[in-house]
Amino acid sequence: MTGTPAPFTADDYRARMERAARAADEAGLAGVLVSPGPDLVWLTGYAPPAATERLTLLVLAPGQDPVLVVPTLEAPDAEKAVGAPALKLRDWTDGKDPYTATAPLLDASGRFGVSDNAWAMHLLGLQRELPGTSYVSLSDGLPMLRAVKDAAELERLAAAGAAADDTYEEILKVAFAGRRESDVAGDLADLLRHFGHEQVDFTVVGSGPNGANPHHEAGSRVIGHGDTVVLDFGGLKHGYGSDTSRTVHVGEPSAEEQRVHDIVRAAQQAAFEAVRPGIACQDVDRVARAHITDAGYGDRFIHRTGHGIGVTTHEPPYMIEGEEQPLVPGMCFSVEPGIYLPGRFGVRIEDIVTVTEDGGRRLNDTPREMAVVN
Amino acid sequence: MTGTPAPFTADDYRARMERAARAADEAGLAGVLVSPGPDLVWLTGYAPPAATERLTLLVLAPGQDPVLVVPTLEAPDAEKAVGAPALKLRDWTDGKDPYTATAPLLDASGRFGVSDNAWAMHLLGLQRELPGTSYVSLSDGLPMLRAVKDAAELERLAAAGAAADDTYEEILKVAFAGRRESDVAGDLADLLRHFGHEQVDFTVVGSGPNGANPHHEAGSRVIGHGDTVVLDFGGLKHGYGSDTSRTVHVGEPSAEEQRVHDIVRAAQQAAFEAVRPGIACQDVDRVARAHITDAGYGDRFIHRTGHGIGVTTHEPPYMIEGEEQPLVPGMCFSVEPGIYLPGRFGVRIEDIVTVTEDGGRRLNDTPREMAVVN
Repeated sequence: MTGTPAPFTADDYRARMERAARAADEAGLAGVLVSPGPDLVWLTGYAPPAATERLTLLVLAPGQDPVLVVPTLEAPDAEKAVGAPALKLRDWTDGKDPYTATAPLLDASGRFGVSDNAWAMHLLGLQRELPGTSYVSLSDGLPMLRAVKDAAELERLAAAGAAADDTYEEILKVAFAGRRESDVAGDLADLLRHFGHEQVDFTVVGSGPNGANPHHEAGSRVIGHGDTVVLDFGGLKHGYGSDTSRTVHVGEPSAEEQRVHDIVRAAQQAAFEAVRPGIACQDVDRVARAHITDAGYGDRFIHRTGHGIGVTTHEPPYMIEGEEQPLVPGMCFSVEPGIYLPGRFGVRIEDIVTVTEDGGRRLNDTPREMAVVN
Repeated sequence: MTGTPAPFTADDYRARMERAARAADEAGLAGVLVSPGPDLVWLTGYAPPAATERLTLLVLAPGQDPVLVVPTLEAPDAEKAVGAPALKLRDWTDGKDPYTATAPLLDASGRFGVSDNAWAMHLLGLQRELPGTSYVSLSDGLPMLRAVKDAAELERLAAAGAAADDTYEEILKVAFAGRRESDVAGDLADLLRHFGHEQVDFTVVGSGPNGANPHHEAGSRVIGHGDTVVLDFGGLKHGYGSDTSRTVHVGEPSAEEQRVHDIVRAAQQAAFEAVRPGIACQDVDRVARAHITDAGYGDRFIHRTGHGIGVTTHEPPYMIEGEEQPLVPGMCFSVEPGIYLPGRFGVRIEDIVTVTEDGGRRLNDTPREMAVVN
């Protein structure tokens, strides 16, 4: 196992904020408005004690020092953030209008990128206070902001992926038959933490017909001999995400189960091999989808092929029809085609892949054959 | 202890959705758009597996059946919601535009109330798709939507309050001196769960100078003899919130500590006694603030006096300067003045109060004297 990576510094956060302001300028935006959540963590290291109705907003604009608008009573928390030395705090007190406090920081006729998950209430407050402004979500306006990972980030993503792979190797040794899905899910969570995750985001155990619902988590169903079981798990290690899926079988699979699994596996392999700089995100989806469609299951592949990963386990870039963004070295995302047969079973195979100069590199690399478990 | 309350039914949710559509109509709104979170839980009983970038949106409009727009892969979860029989599902598939799918449900020139915490990305998507529409946050446009609790809700809030009170009685028996704040916070969480909370939202233990930061949670500071300690804890029991604060002292307080505590206690009592139908929310704040200001600590009471509580522990109505909303029987909110002396200590006393026909009734009623702990 690798050691703990060096923590990010105020200089790291300063560089990210400068990069964001520059990217905004190049995109014709007057600035970037960042609410609590992954964007703010990535830019400043700051996560408020809780995301509440009180406005916390980082304002980044070209040629202007970064300013964090923060409720007075959370200012002591914000001051402790690693990135705090790289920004100014502007606090506002309960009973005052936070949008009035924010307005002087903004170009009153500017167009701003705003965090996807900013509260609608806050966006409406800014639109009302500054009717000449306009807004675009960051995933529309600056989708690349966090998408290209640097070496320190890739190191963390690789470590998280390796821990997820270790988790998978261990879960193959536990008993499946006769136990509830939620028991196996608990094992997965314990293993992820054992291998260094500080946060477990999901531990999907979809057995038999439950596997046909891609977002089924894990329930009280007792896993039986002959079940196909979709495993999909991940979380954060050193602040960066893991996310991998494998589909296993309790005892030997039927010919049909094996065939469906082979189709998904080949689709996942083909999509992985398609990854290289310059091709569009939607092409990764198209390659996987074409393979599954040609095999006769196109209408049973009911989700996109992948999503980005970084300080969250779900972020741009999305491998989805309509996403024309070209791949760039350093991007990291899942490649996870699946086939879902309602009332019967599902199959999904997922790796995190990073784009290299001449192709793709998997950050998950456990065997993709359908493992037989007990 | 009381038993488990009868679960809400599809008819309960239908009635709430009808009430919301009617309230929208009376407020001159074309409808209400509800995203995952407390509004959706309250209206439908549905909480998606995770709030993601994929649009889930409940559309309520006068004279129109409720429709839940939902990602295809989450439709099986939505169908299981208790309120599902009272609404229609309209699912959309990855790769399609969810705003295009939603647009036909909306009056293209209407003004809509939208959940405070709806993602900005989704609001921007609707604004782009239907440029003739306009929006107001629900806490601005329909602040009363969830604010007035019915008998079944009050029963749950009272049960949650009683469980928080039981927790306080028990925490007085544990050792404070020589233990970390986080240890006492752990005790509080265990006790809340022991007394029936399914979710713990916060367990603030602010000892000595940490008590002077109202949003300090609990850290590694070892509590010492002579410390003032702010305790503020709550969560959800049977889906409804608790939230109470008491300030205790390790050993006998100094004359100044006692005096500050007496001021806060009297301010809290005065604000409680001010509660009655018809007075404005801001008047509850003013009464508490006037008392503390008269005692010379006005600039050290750095937050509003209270917030509503229901299916969340933070919601309208807010007891804050500028909030002219009159109190109505059935409203439930905190009354929690405090005084914060930076670098030294803080005091806060908080009860949940519900408005009755002729005054207020506390849902927390443990002693408000400063308890001496060990």
